[in-house]
Formats: sequence, C-alpha cells, structure tokens
Amino acid sequence: MDVLAYGTEKASATLKPVKFTRTPARAGEIEIEISHCGVCHSDLHQARDDWDNTVWPCVPGHEIVGTVTAVGDGVKKFKVGDRAGVGCMVNSCQECEQCKMGHEQYCTGPKSATLTYNGPKEPDGTNTYGGYSTGIVVREEFALTIPDKIETEKAGPILCAGITTYQPMKYFGLKKGQTLGVAGIGGLGHMAVQIGKALGAKVVALTTSPEKKQAIMALGADEVIDMSDEKALENAKASIDLIVDTIPYEHDINPYVALVAAKGQIAVVGNLIGFDKIDSGAMIMNHVGITGSLIGGIADTQEVLELCAKHDIRPEIEIIPMDGINDAFKRMQKEDVRFRHVIDMESLRGDAEAVDGAKELDPPERGAVVGR
Amino acid sequence: MDVLAYGTEKASATLKPVKFTRTPARAGEIEIEISHCGVCHSDLHQARDDWDNTVWPCVPGHEIVGTVTAVGDGVKKFKVGDRAGVGCMVNSCQECEQCKMGHEQYCTGPKSATLTYNGPKEPDGTNTYGGYSTGIVVREEFALTIPDKIETEKAGPILCAGITTYQPMKYFGLKKGQTLGVAGIGGLGHMAVQIGKALGAKVVALTTSPEKKQAIMALGADEVIDMSDEKALENAKASIDLIVDTIPYEHDINPYVALVAAKGQIAVVGNLIGFDKIDSGAMIMNHVGITGSLIGGIADTQEVLELCAKHDIRPEIEIIPMDGINDAFKRMQKEDVRFRHVIDMESLRGDAEAVDGAKELDPPERGAVVGR
Repeated sequence: MDVLAYGTEKASATLKPVKFTRTPARAGEIEIEISHCGVCHSDLHQARDDWDNTVWPCVPGHEIVGTVTAVGDGVKKFKVGDRAGVGCMVNSCQECEQCKMGHEQYCTGPKSATLTYNGPKEPDGTNTYGGYSTGIVVREEFALTIPDKIETEKAGPILCAGITTYQPMKYFGLKKGQTLGVAGIGGLGHMAVQIGKALGAKVVALTTSPEKKQAIMALGADEVIDMSDEKALENAKASIDLIVDTIPYEHDINPYVALVAAKGQIAVVGNLIGFDKIDSGAMIMNHVGITGSLIGGIADTQEVLELCAKHDIRPEIEIIPMDGINDAFKRMQKEDVRFRHVIDMESLRGDAEAVDGAKELDPPERGAVVGR
Repeated sequence: MDVLAYGTEKASATLKPVKFTRTPARAGEIEIEISHCGVCHSDLHQARDDWDNTVWPCVPGHEIVGTVTAVGDGVKKFKVGDRAGVGCMVNSCQECEQCKMGHEQYCTGPKSATLTYNGPKEPDGTNTYGGYSTGIVVREEFALTIPDKIETEKAGPILCAGITTYQPMKYFGLKKGQTLGVAGIGGLGHMAVQIGKALGAKVVALTTSPEKKQAIMALGADEVIDMSDEKALENAKASIDLIVDTIPYEHDINPYVALVAAKGQIAVVGNLIGFDKIDSGAMIMNHVGITGSLIGGIADTQEVLELCAKHDIRPEIEIIPMDGINDAFKRMQKEDVRFRHVIDMESLRGDAEAVDGAKELDPPERGAVVGR
C-alpha cells in the first residue's frame, strides 16, 4: 500500500510531506483508506521529542477514521466499504493477563503494546507510522467499528480523547451522583465533561482559562471552577470523588489534590513529563491518590464509541487541511485551540506539490500478527 | 487526673518533664494508667515542627498501653484492671460517612478526627497531649482491647506502626500470592514485612540499609532489594503489586514506581513532607498510583491486634526510660534504630527529679464525647 503522509525526521523541524509503503493486509489484517485524523497533543509532544523517546522518522496520528479497502484472510469484523477507526494501538501479545482482561495498553508480552506511531511502548528500535497519512494497515482486533450515528469526521477524537478520559471513570467506578472533576478543558477535557454527564456524575470543570466558561457550560458541565479563584477553591475543598487530569504538560497538582474528597483519586492522563513538589502530607491526610492512566483497551474503546452514539456526545472539531498541521501545532502550544483539530486527508491526496515532492521513508514495521 | 509527662514548648528544645491535669473520665470515657508508650518517627517530626503545624506545648506519644483505673458512666467495653491501648486518635464525629464505615481518621465531621496529641486533624487551636505521660483519659470507642497473647510492652507499636501498614494492605485488597513491597524497614516497615507474610503475600523488602539484610530476612521477608543495586532493580521491574512506603522523609519515589506492576499502587504512609520530580510518564505507562494513607480506623486497629496475636507478630523493641527520649530522637534522626523504641513509663513515675521539677502546663482539651 503506497501511502502519502506528513512526518519529520528531527525534533526541530516542521512536519513535511513524506511517502512510504505499508505491507499489504496479511491474514487477520485490514487496509484502511484514511479520510480523517484527529490532532492530539501527544502528536506534538512526540514530533518535538518532548518525552525523549521519539523514534525517527516520526509520522504522528492516532485518531484515525476511514474506509476499509481490503481485508486479509480470515477477517471477520470488517468487509470492504465499512467504516473503521484506529486509535492509539495497533498490536499486543493478546495472551498476557492484561491483554486477556482487555487492557492491551499494559500488555506484558515480549514486545509490549505496539503504538500506532513510534513503535512498541517498550522501545525496541521498531518504528510505526501513524494516521497523518492516506492509509493504514492493522490487524482487525485493533480496528474499531464506528457506530452509524457518528459522523466520520467526528469519530477520530473519540478513539484517543474519548477513551483516555472514559477509561479512568470506568476503572475507578465513577457512580451516578458522584462528583467528577475535569482538569484542563481542551481536546480530552471537553470529551470528559460530556462523558461524565452521560455516566450520571455531577461534573465540575477545572480550568485556567475562565474565558472558556460559557463554552464549557454548553458542554453540560454543572460547574466551572477558575483555578486562580482562591475562594472557589476553598469552597470546593475535598468535594470531588475523581479528577481526570487532562493537562498535557507539567503543572502544580497540589491545588487539585486539595479538591479531592477522602479516598478519591486523580487520574493523570495527559502530563507524561512530571510533577514537582507534590505535598504528600495532604494526600496522606485525606487518602488521596494520583494514578497514571494510559489511553484504554480496545473493548473499552468500542464501548465509549457506543456511549457517545447513544448520548449524542461529539468532539467539537475544527477541520484543517494536512498542510495546516504546523500552524495547528503552533496554536496548540499557545493553548489557542477550541477543543480538537481534525485533518481532512482528502486535502493531502489533492495536494499536487506534496504528491510530487514527498520524501521517501523506509517502510514502517508493525510486528507479527500474533495470537491468531 | 494528675499527670506527669515529657513535652516541649518549642521546636528547638529537647523534651523535658512537664505536668498537667486531665479532666477525669466523663460518661463513656475511661482512665488509663500508662505503662508503656512506643516512640514513632511522627513524634520526632511533631516535636521538631517538621510539618509546620505543631500546636504548643507538644506532648507526643500515640502507641499507648496501660491499665484501666476508672470508667465513666455507661462504659461497656472496659472495666477497671483491664489492659487497654490508645493509638493515634481519641475522638471523631461518629456520624459522617467515613466514621460509619470505620475510617474515623478521615472523619468529615465539624472538628475532623482528634489526634492523640496535637489536637484535631483540621487544627482549630485545641490541643491534646499524648502518651509520653503517666495517664490518659479517652472515650471507650477509641480504646483498644489488647489480646491476652500480646505482651504489654510490645502492644503499643501495633497501634500505629501495625495499623498504618496493615490498613493499605486491606484497603487495596492485597491477596494471597501477590507481591508486597515494603519501602523502608524501620519501625513501620518491620511490622509491614510480618503482616504481609501473615496475609500470604510474597514480601520484598526495599531498603537503603543493606547491612540490615539478615535481620530483615529473619522477620520473614522473601527477598531484600538494596535500592542502590541497579541490577536488582532492573530484575524486579514492574513486579510488585503493592508497595507500602514507610520512609518518613522526602525521598526519590521514581525507583519505587518502576518496581510496581501494571495497575499497582504505592501507599505512602510515612513521608508527610513531599516528593520532588515525580516521573508521571512512568506512572501513566503502567497505570501506577501513588496514594496517601493515614493510620487506620479503630475496627481495623482491633483487627490487626488480633492478627498479630494469631500469627505471633511482634515489634522488635528496645525499652528505654522516659529520660532517654532525647537520645532516642537523636538515634532516629541518624537512622540508628533497630526497629522500635518503647518507653517504660514506670521510669518517669520513679524519677524524683522529674516529679519535683516538672513544669506545669495548661490542661489539654479533648473535645466533647459526641455520638452517644
């Protein structure tokens, strides 16, 4: 499968047109012509090597939606012409305890989970290329069925932003009537607000951008707390059962700890970099936990797609052409994004300059189709 | 009740003889003549004001064992002559959700839990004086029954070191065959090792004092990892289900995070000060949590006393006279303590100089006997 894409070979460069070949669908795999791909803050972090783990070249994108154009032997879930989605993972061992319980993202198999771009979670030199591209090939277990009610261009962000915020709500057993806090109301946070409401929680949005208040209330939040408003923080002390912290960079987590009720948790899903000066005394005094949470398993991803279909939950998106990605990254860095960018991949197919001038990359590997 | 004690009125001073009067037993309360009191690292932190929250004067001590000498109206659990223990709390609202579920230490009532010394957990100016004293008066709900099999001088440390380490094992559901890590093998850690074994876990002791290895193995640990041995750390990566982190001061928690298996937790019970530079990326990648845990409720404290009786679990103690406390503090600061100091309170009663020269303090308050 010949693919046109956008990628970079070093952290300091902008993304540019590239091309490469993906091995066609093997047994159990499907080929997808990508129509849209969401832009996640992780894409920017990975392309800039903010986590010091980027495998070059880097072709980001893990909120992928498109149409199945070919199926390998034995494929059961999809047929040619179906819509299909690919989220953050494309492979795992399918045999370890974590895989068996549907948490493939924590696969303890020999290669760990393979991410949609940047290769295995435990790096072994293998690279994978993501969805800033015209096509992808994946094993069917890692492709999602897009419910009929969900528009193609709006499905992608559910596959990362949706599942990443839904997963901790499910894991920590968020119950009807409990209070959910959502820290950071961007791409992930605006999905979390809607999903929390669908689960019957009281949703308190925690933001450092109070100018977004009207927009956040329109998403269904019961309350918006401006994190610079000390009186509001004092009033809300120890009142939130679970905070999903979507902020994608280092930040002071102590004001959030103070908001958590006894035995509550903060699920950290966005900041992979670190926290400084955590006041563990406050955590001990009220049995507050800070737990990392990585995306979510495939079954849970399908579940949140169905939940979004049922409750009319959609990401708020702004469609951009592929060559708008570098501007989009700049806006994300300035936090000037109203929720989620989605790339229209037709724009790349129709870009004569990209088609002609794309630099050829070594083909990506995607590992064996195990567990079949 | 006239009481002789050891206390301090400022962080920079050593502990000195003091005296004060405790209001005699009211309805529902009992008077205890203290025979022994364990020395907890918290006593040192509080006396030195390491947590910036000391209410002066400070009379530490919350591993108290003695004999009941008087009972108030309506007391049912105790009669004169019984042995009784007092741990870290002496009061709570008894009515809030946390109290009802037996987690009085997280009481959300108007005054929060009242600690055995230093007053309410949410400071309101009220002070309480602890067990570095010849006697105490408490409501019976906060007094523990010492099982016959447990020696008087060895029961005290179970009331803090025992419950504080047992509680997270119970809360996080440590199961037979799972792996428990114990970080820091001092007063709390050496109890955690024994309790973990009694619960059927594989116990891995994590120490920065490899010279303690023989002593730690003798406690029943299955394995001892020297935290400076990089190869051992690499081999043990992502292998521990629950770490009880008893280290009572700031430390680098990242090497411990790396040892935790997917979806495992680190229960922080000792370090009330803080953590610097936590690598949240590692926590996210493996769904690792860091959760604070404060002592434990009264029912759980009684439960761990019974567990210790049944499994012959005892603290390793070194009995000291009351006037040896300042030397004991010095040794604790140098980490030169083989497990737990216990004060023999007879030494204070017999100290003519202390009896004559003790400075008179204002009497402590202990709050209303609520919930009756």
